[in-house]
Order: sequence, then C-alpha cells, then structure tokens
Amino acid sequence: MRKIGVIGLGHVGSTVAYTLVTKGIADELVLIDNNDAKCTAEFYDYMDSLPRLDTSTKILKQNYSDLADADVIVTSFGDIKALAQGGDRFLEYEFNCKQAKEVGIKLHEVGFKGVLINISNPCDVITGLLRYYTGLNRRQVFGTGTFLDTARMQRAVGMALNQNPHNISGYVLGEHGESQFTAWSTVCVQGKPIEELAEEVGLNLGELDNAARGGGWLVFNGKKYTCYAIATCAVKLVQAVFSDSRLVCPASVYVDEFKCYVGYPAIITKSGAEMAMPLPLSAEEKEKLTASAKMIRTKTEEGKGRQR
Amino acid sequence: MRKIGVIGLGHVGSTVAYTLVTKGIADELVLIDNNDAKCTAEFYDYMDSLPRLDTSTKILKQNYSDLADADVIVTSFGDIKALAQGGDRFLEYEFNCKQAKEVGIKLHEVGFKGVLINISNPCDVITGLLRYYTGLNRRQVFGTGTFLDTARMQRAVGMALNQNPHNISGYVLGEHGESQFTAWSTVCVQGKPIEELAEEVGLNLGELDNAARGGGWLVFNGKKYTCYAIATCAVKLVQAVFSDSRLVCPASVYVDEFKCYVGYPAIITKSGAEMAMPLPLSAEEKEKLTASAKMIRTKTEEGKGRQR
Amino acid sequence: MRKIGVIGLGHVGSTVAYTLVTKGIADELVLIDNNDAKCTAEFYDYMDSLPRLDTSTKILKQNYSDLADADVIVTSFGDIKALAQGGDRFLEYEFNCKQAKEVGIKLHEVGFKGVLINISNPCDVITGLLRYYTGLNRRQVFGTGTFLDTARMQRAVGMALNQNPHNISGYVLGEHGESQFTAWSTVCVQGKPIEELAEEVGLNLGELDNAARGGGWLVFNGKKYTCYAIATCAVKLVQAVFSDSRLVCPASVYVDEFKCYVGYPAIITKSGAEMAMPLPLSAEEKEKLTASAKMIRTKTEEGKGRQR
Amino acid sequence: MRKIGVIGLGHVGSTVAYTLVTKGIADELVLIDNNDAKCTAEFYDYMDSLPRLDTSTKILKQNYSDLADADVIVTSFGDIKALAQGGDRFLEYEFNCKQAKEVGIKLHEVGFKGVLINISNPCDVITGLLRYYTGLNRRQVFGTGTFLDTARMQRAVGMALNQNPHNISGYVLGEHGESQFTAWSTVCVQGKPIEELAEEVGLNLGELDNAARGGGWLVFNGKKYTCYAIATCAVKLVQAVFSDSRLVCPASVYVDEFKCYVGYPAIITKSGAEMAMPLPLSAEEKEKLTASAKMIRTKTEEGKGRQR
Repeated sequence: MRKIGVIGLGHVGSTVAYTLVTKGIADELVLIDNNDAKCTAEFYDYMDSLPRLDTSTKILKQNYSDLADADVIVTSFGDIKALAQGGDRFLEYEFNCKQAKEVGIKLHEVGFKGVLINISNPCDVITGLLRYYTGLNRRQVFGTGTFLDTARMQRAVGMALNQNPHNISGYVLGEHGESQFTAWSTVCVQGKPIEELAEEVGLNLGELDNAARGGGWLVFNGKKYTCYAIATCAVKLVQAVFSDSRLVCPASVYVDEFKCYVGYPAIITKSGAEMAMPLPLSAEEKEKLTASAKMIRTKTEEGKGRQR
Repeated sequence: MRKIGVIGLGHVGSTVAYTLVTKGIADELVLIDNNDAKCTAEFYDYMDSLPRLDTSTKILKQNYSDLADADVIVTSFGDIKALAQGGDRFLEYEFNCKQAKEVGIKLHEVGFKGVLINISNPCDVITGLLRYYTGLNRRQVFGTGTFLDTARMQRAVGMALNQNPHNISGYVLGEHGESQFTAWSTVCVQGKPIEELAEEVGLNLGELDNAARGGGWLVFNGKKYTCYAIATCAVKLVQAVFSDSRLVCPASVYVDEFKCYVGYPAIITKSGAEMAMPLPLSAEEKEKLTASAKMIRTKTEEGKGRQR
Repeated sequence: MRKIGVIGLGHVGSTVAYTLVTKGIADELVLIDNNDAKCTAEFYDYMDSLPRLDTSTKILKQNYSDLADADVIVTSFGDIKALAQGGDRFLEYEFNCKQAKEVGIKLHEVGFKGVLINISNPCDVITGLLRYYTGLNRRQVFGTGTFLDTARMQRAVGMALNQNPHNISGYVLGEHGESQFTAWSTVCVQGKPIEELAEEVGLNLGELDNAARGGGWLVFNGKKYTCYAIATCAVKLVQAVFSDSRLVCPASVYVDEFKCYVGYPAIITKSGAEMAMPLPLSAEEKEKLTASAKMIRTKTEEGKGRQR
Repeated sequence: MRKIGVIGLGHVGSTVAYTLVTKGIADELVLIDNNDAKCTAEFYDYMDSLPRLDTSTKILKQNYSDLADADVIVTSFGDIKALAQGGDRFLEYEFNCKQAKEVGIKLHEVGFKGVLINISNPCDVITGLLRYYTGLNRRQVFGTGTFLDTARMQRAVGMALNQNPHNISGYVLGEHGESQFTAWSTVCVQGKPIEELAEEVGLNLGELDNAARGGGWLVFNGKKYTCYAIATCAVKLVQAVFSDSRLVCPASVYVDEFKCYVGYPAIITKSGAEMAMPLPLSAEEKEKLTASAKMIRTKTEEGKGRQR
C-alpha cells in the first residue's frame, strides 16, 4: 500500500496532492497544513473529486501520527507573504528554517522512517535542515533541487531548436536558485553535444542558461507562484522511490565532497537518493558547482544555528 | 487528434488545463485569458511540465483563430474580485454575462463548430448565453452544472455511511447554485433507495442535501476558490465527448420543457449533450426543479437583454 | 509500496501482469508459473516494456518466498489442455483442484498474509479451496466471480439499447459458470428498472441473460481463450484492495447463508471482500441463487476431499 | 477525436488494441483481421472490458471503409504457421509480402490519408511495401523497426549494470532482424559513453549486443510469440504521432542514402516519421548499417516484383 504525506498545502503542495489523487498514485494520503481551514478546504476539494475518478485514495488530515508509517513524505511549506515580494527564493529562508525545525522534530517524534522529498525553498538548505532535524540518514532525505531547473533548460533548448524536450539530455547543477548553472558539457540534443551544435547553428548558450534560471520568474511574474511543473517533478520522484527504480534524475542530493545537499544527478531508490556517477565537468563548471555548494553549506549551517 | 481550448485560466481553468496535459488527454491545447501575463505564466508552467511527462501536448496561446478547428472548448472565465466577496455564484453574473457575449461572438467569428462545455458561473445561465452568442445548436453547448454538486452529494452520503462515493447513485438537479436540490427519489446506496435506508438507519436527508449544496462553500471558505473537484468533472465530460461515449451524467443540459439549461441527467456524445430519460420525480421534486429552471430562464433572458 | 504476485501466467495471468506493469500499478511484481520457460518469456517481455514506460516495476520470478510480504496475489492458473476442449469451465476442475492445494499450501508455508484474488476456474470452487489451503480468513480470499459476467451483461444490455455500459447497473449472481443468472430485479438502465423498460420497449430479457452467460463463449470460440475483459476485472479489484476503497463490486465472496463462495455484491477493502447489503431478490432469483450456491458448495467440499 | 485502426489481430495486434482501449488512448478503434471469428472474439473481449474502465472507446470491426478517416493505422498481420517454426523473421516474408499488397491496396482504395505504423515482419521490408502499395508519402509510413531492439539493449545493459533502462541512451540500428547491431558509439550510461565504461568495469559489449538481438528469441522460445514489449513500442509511437511530439525514437524510417526503410533515429510528428540528425557512427558501424540496409532494399524490391 502506498502511503504518502504532503506537509504544506500552498499552491505547490496542493497540486502535488491533487496529482497523487487524480493519477491514482497514492493509496493513502495524509494532508498537513498550519492553516486548518485551508487543509479542510483542500481535503474536501479532493474528496469531491473521488466520485469522478476511477481510482480511490484514502485521505486523512492534520495528524502527524498518521505519518508514522508513511512511505514517502513531500514537504512543500512556504512563506506566502515573503514570496509575494518575489525575486528571490531566500525570501522564505527565515520562515522555512523555522518550519524545517518544527516539521523535522515532529516527524522524528512520530517515528517516521520513510523517504522525505523536500520542495520548500531555499530547497537545498531546507533539505539539509530537514535531514538534520528528522535524524534520518542522508539518503532518506533529498530535495527536488534542480530537477525543475533542468526541465526548464530542456524546455528552453527544445523551444529554441524545435525539439521535444525529451530529446534534450543533461543537467542544471548546483543550487535551486540564483547560483545554479546549466552544465553545458553534459547537455546533448538528440545525443549530440550541444556545445558542438551551438557553434554549427549559432546558439547562444548564455541566453539559454538564463532562460532556464529565469524560467521560474517568467511563471512567477504572471501568477505570483509556480505550481504545475514543480508538482510533476515531485510526483515523478515519488513514483521513482516507490518502484525502487534506480532512475537517474538531477535532485538535491547529499554530496560528500561538499558536505551538503546540492543539485546533482542522483539515483532514486526505495531508500531515497544517492549521488550518481561523477560527471566529467569542465574546470569552470566545477568551480561554479563548488561555489554554489559552498553557499548552500554556509546557509545550512547558519540555519541550524539560528534554530537552536 | 484531440484539440481542446480552455478559455479563462483562473484556478479552475488552469487546473483543467493541467489535468488535460498531465493525463495526456489533449494532443493540442489552446489557452486563452484576458490577462496576457497570467496566460504566459500558465503556458510556461505547463511547458516546463512536459519534460517530466510521458505524453506530449502541443500548447498554443492567446489566439482565437487557433480555436476554429478545436473539437472541444472549456469556458472557465470568472470575476475574481466579485468572487472574493464569496457566498453567491451570482456575484459573477454581471461580469460573466459580458464575458459570455464577448467569448461567444469571437467563437462564432472564428467559425468554431465543436462542443463547448461551460463551467463559468452562474453556470446554467452562462451556458445559455454562450449557446446564444455562439449560435451553436443546443446539444453542442452544455455546462458542468450539477455534475459537481452530485459529486458532493455522493461524497457527503458516502462519508455518512462509510461508503465509497461510487456506491452512491442518483442526482442533484436544477441550478448549479442555491436553488439546486438532491432528488432523493433518484438516490440509491448500493442500489437500495436511500429513502428506505434513511428510515432504517436514521439518516437526516435534509442535512445531507445541505452538505451537498454547501460543499462548495466548505472548500471556498478555506481557500477562496474551488478548483480540483470541478476540474475532474469537466475533464470527465471532455473525455466523454471525445469518445462519443453516451455516458449519462448530470450536467447543465437544455431541457425543452423549461426552455433553458438546467442540471439534469444528460447523455454525452460527440455532438455534445442531450437530455437523458425523464426521471420519475416526486411532485415536490418536480416543483423544485420547475422553480429552479424558471429562475435560470429569467436570468438567462435578462442576461441576453443586458448584453445587447 | 505495492507488491503484487501473479500465479499462473497463461493468457489471463500474463495479461493481468502486463496491465499491472503498463499502468504503473505494481511497484513490485512476482511472477510464478509451473512452466519455467514460459515464466522467463513473460519476464523478459515485461522487462523489455519498461524502457517504453514512464513508470517502473521491479519484477521477480519463480520464488514463492518473494510472496511472503506481497500485499495482493492474483491466482490465474489453469489447464490449457482441458480448456482447449471448450464449452465448460468445469473441464479444469480436476487440474485446478490440485493446483489450488499446491499453491495454497505453498502460500501458507511462506507465511503470506495479504489478500488473494482468484480467477482460476471453476472460480467459486477454486476460491473456496484456496481459502481452505492457505488458511487465510474468509475476507482475505475472494474471486473475480460474476464481476466479469456482470460486465458482459452491461455490455449486452448497453448494445441492445445503445447505452454506455456504465449506464447499466445491477448484477449477475451465482456461479461464474452455467448456473449463473442475471438478477433482473437489480438491473437499471439510467436508474430505471429494466423490467419496466423491457415492457415498454419490448426487450427480451431471457436473450440478454443468455448473451451475458454466453458472452465468454463468444470470445472463446474465436480465440480459444478469453483474457482482456477478465484482466480489467481483476485489476480493478486489485486497485480497490490497495486503496481500501469500500467499492461495491460483484465478486465471488463468502456468503454465510450458503457456506461457500458465490457471486454476490461485495465490499472491497484492504482486508479483502465481504458481502455487501443483501439484495431484495425475487423468489425466483433467490431460488436460482440457492441452487447455484448449493452446487458450488458440493463441488468445493468434493474438491477438498479429493485433495486429501 | 483520435481514430485508430489495427490491421491484424494476432498476439501483437490484439495487445496493441487492448492497450489503446485500456489506457484510453483511442476514441475510435477499427479492428480488421482475415479471421472473422478471431476479430469478433477480440471485439467482444474489448467490449466486455469497457464496463471496467473509466474511459470509453467506440469499437468497429471488419470494415475497411471505416479506415478512410482514421488518423493512425497500426499493421500487425503475420503468418502464424510460419512463425511457429521460429528462428527467423523472414519466415513470414512470403505471406506478409502478399498481405502488404492486399492491405496497402485496400487502404489506397478507401482513401486513407493518415499515418501508418507497421509492425509486421520482416518489419523494414514490409514497411517499404506498405508505403509502395498505399501510395502514401515516405513520412506517412514507418515501422517500429529497432525501437524494440533498442529497448532490449537498454534492458540488457540495465540489467548488467543494475541501472534503470531509462538511464541507458543510444541505439540499435539497421534491420529489425539478424543484421541489426547496437551502435555502441551512441550508447551512454548515465550520460557516460559505454565504450569508456566497458573498459573500466570490464563489460563485454559483444555479449550485450547478442542479448539485444537475441532478446526476442528469449521471449519467443518460452511462449512462441512476443507481444508485450512490442505493443508498448507501437503505442508510444502512436501517441507521439497524435501529439505531433517531435520525439526522437529509433524506428524503421526511410533513409534517402539507402533508398529504403531501415532502423535509425527518427523524429515523430503528426505527419509521420523523418530521419533525425545523422549519427557520428564509427567506420565499422557505418559499414554494418550499409550492409543491413542493402539487404533490406534488395528484399523490398524483390517483394514488389513478386507481388506484381
């Protein structure tokens, strides 16, 4: 039986839950939100969906103890007010550091032993804090990280070249935030290195990198949040965990070398996520990744300190 | 090829579009919204989802002429400001009457010849106006109507009796609004008339009727809109049209006797919706339905007048 | 995590497994067949499918001990040679009684504690024997029974009246075999009792009953087995168990009154199946059901004796 | 509306049709088979499935004129008797050349203007003949070709390295038959060239190539046909056509250089398939491809001659 929890039912969390219900992925779903009226609202919006679906999901709400035997938990809490100011995922830092502590401790207390997939921003930092406060091992906790940014890169490159995004492979690495970068040395179009192709057809990779990094703001500016693409990323990771798939996806995974969570290819299993094979990055890419990870680590340690 | 348009990308319309994309239902999807920035935001949020999905959808935006050869259009425009005041679906009447005229005329101009499924509130009235302004025939245009309210009734009865909502059959009839009512004479639990069961186990049908009618506000109060259940209803109707399914669903369908659209069982085909077999309603139920329809008709005629 | 076993990989079992894999329903799937080469063939045919699917399933084979912690097992063993003679589901009786004993004892030995859904024919008898030899409780073991025959009735009535089969409610009861019968008193078309409708439009219910009962042979005669419809029935029951859905479906369920398994409406939960609310059958229908159950009980007891 | 035809309802064609029905992909499905009883059997086996599915499909049978306005047709005819001898896809050559002529001419006569995806073996040859006899253009007709063999290669490499098959990219090229070969220069594991990895971890690529080529026989030997993996390949191509996806898949596509259909990466659109970007093959790989294509071309021309 697939038992999944979603903690934080803002636009993102509620879309994740909707997808888990409507695609028949969750057998049992536990909804948690600080705002009880909001949680009740979402609960009934899902319950009213079930008569129109062919699959069934048992939906519970607002009880951490129901999470004790959950297989997977998705955390998607956030600071709506801070977010409304826009422009920086670190606006939610203060609020979400506190939330990570609160949620992490509660999950520890109820004895949750499954896999936790974090979406809350700043994603890599909050993933580290959730690992810390839950006391789970480094595999069991991971974040959506640059899985979304990689999708945006695939979309941007795909649109530029009139290609299906699945024809674009490769990774955006580092922070799910401003210090992220597309590792162009890893990107191929139909299996052909994009750096070769770029010369041949006159592609501006810098612009495409900006399109990936800025893709979130393009959405944010028009509706003051993003929810759909991130939900599809989270759901794909949830499914990969349940089936012990060994699928490689970029995610916010713990990298020993950097002593922190950072966007890097990860192998997804029923135990969570572990770093995939090391990428043969260019010197410049390595530098960018190191700098990005350093920032994440500092902010993660800072977050721990603040919380004690 | 399945070509679908969604006009109005508020919470409802954007959830409908998300579902059509993520379930691989739409081959081609045309997005239209008065707010261009919002439309662009949703466009990119779907485009960024495609790399994480197994199916593909070609997404276009903001061009009515792309709707000329659409098979199905879902209208889900609304008045966010009016809606924020809550408590009555007629708050959107003024705004949506104007929208219905504008949208209907544009669809007529581009030569749309498919099926139009309306969600915009007050649903039955706006469905009538869209029929009027598009010049399509009475089958081609229909509304989600009490398909959602029926789901809420199934959910409320199911929760009261610890039953899967699919074990509850029967209909909420009339307006998708305050004059709606559960036609208890049509409702069965596991095939057994609920009126018999109610006596045996001491069910209060009045309370359950209120739960169905008030189900929307339960959701609305907690998040200031409803989106998920209505999206699953709309999507099920879209699918029923494409496959010419002859599935019977309650919907806002044109009923000759009342000369207006009103929530009643309808047969869904590729030509749209037509009234299903007449229900053997009780005298009281007939009266309620007549009253509800009369109100809808008046408001529909009034809406036409106002628009000229 | 959803762990499912399929025992017996003939046309039916292999189609069930294919559906569980391709719809992403099974996280882990254990395949068992007496014919090792056949099992290996199916294993690779599924493994070669995974690169073309968006979901993943971990597939294991030929090890009963892998079934110890399975949530659900589907039994679909059969006697191909006997079946080839056609015309009677009891042709497989001898062979399947032995199989039921062998499989049941093995499942008992490995300590299987989940839910077992039996398809093997004669379905009601073999379900009883599997209950007996596994030592599981009466809920934990149930059969597909007349779920398939009911589908055939819905199809036959639907075709006769140009209705979507979902518009037809009601049940075929009794044995999944020749003594089955459509309980017309339970059948409605668009909620209207078919017995009323039959008079109005001149339907021959006897012919439709034969169409339901004979539906299997219609398929069998053309391809010497049936596999698709039965697979969709089994998969729907599997899904209903996982989500603890409380969905009511006709199935081969243990009925205390008859002291055996027999086709009757059942509530499907994570614990298996239990009899739903008693149907208000006509005297003639009660008689038919009693006769059908009596035969099943006799054959079940006989099967036990033979096996000792 | 998605209208799909399946011509030839052996194990492969009937599994394709089952998948199109149960996944809700086809809105309308036309079934054609030389064996009318078999076609009727499959028709009812699908019809009996519909009451257990949430989606609907309109199913028609045995009428070529119903294919006039089909969007996509899948051809999966075959010679069961010849196939039973096993060991060579050319055993079906004689029979299928005749079938290709018969089917192609009929499709021409009814005025079919959609996309034809051929599975019938020898796949590349029969695809060429179907193109010839239908008179459709070279894009409109293509074959599943090495899409299946590539899946087998991904599976074999994945199993050898404990990787999800989706982590393996690259292609099997040439004939869907004995002269096929894995183009190892195109194969990557987690984005890393397998030729590098093979040296590091001691992989025997020759054995893996045999595993891919022989994968079909592994399945065939155990059940005397293969059906599931090929069905998932065909269905993925059907979906790619409907959504005009521009997805790159290996397929039997017309390659100008070789003047025949041959397994090579293809871009799938609503117009059919066209060759993707040329691969930077090694000299040895080019030679193998040329030899394979030459054989296909000869056999295709021979097939035309024989048919006149």
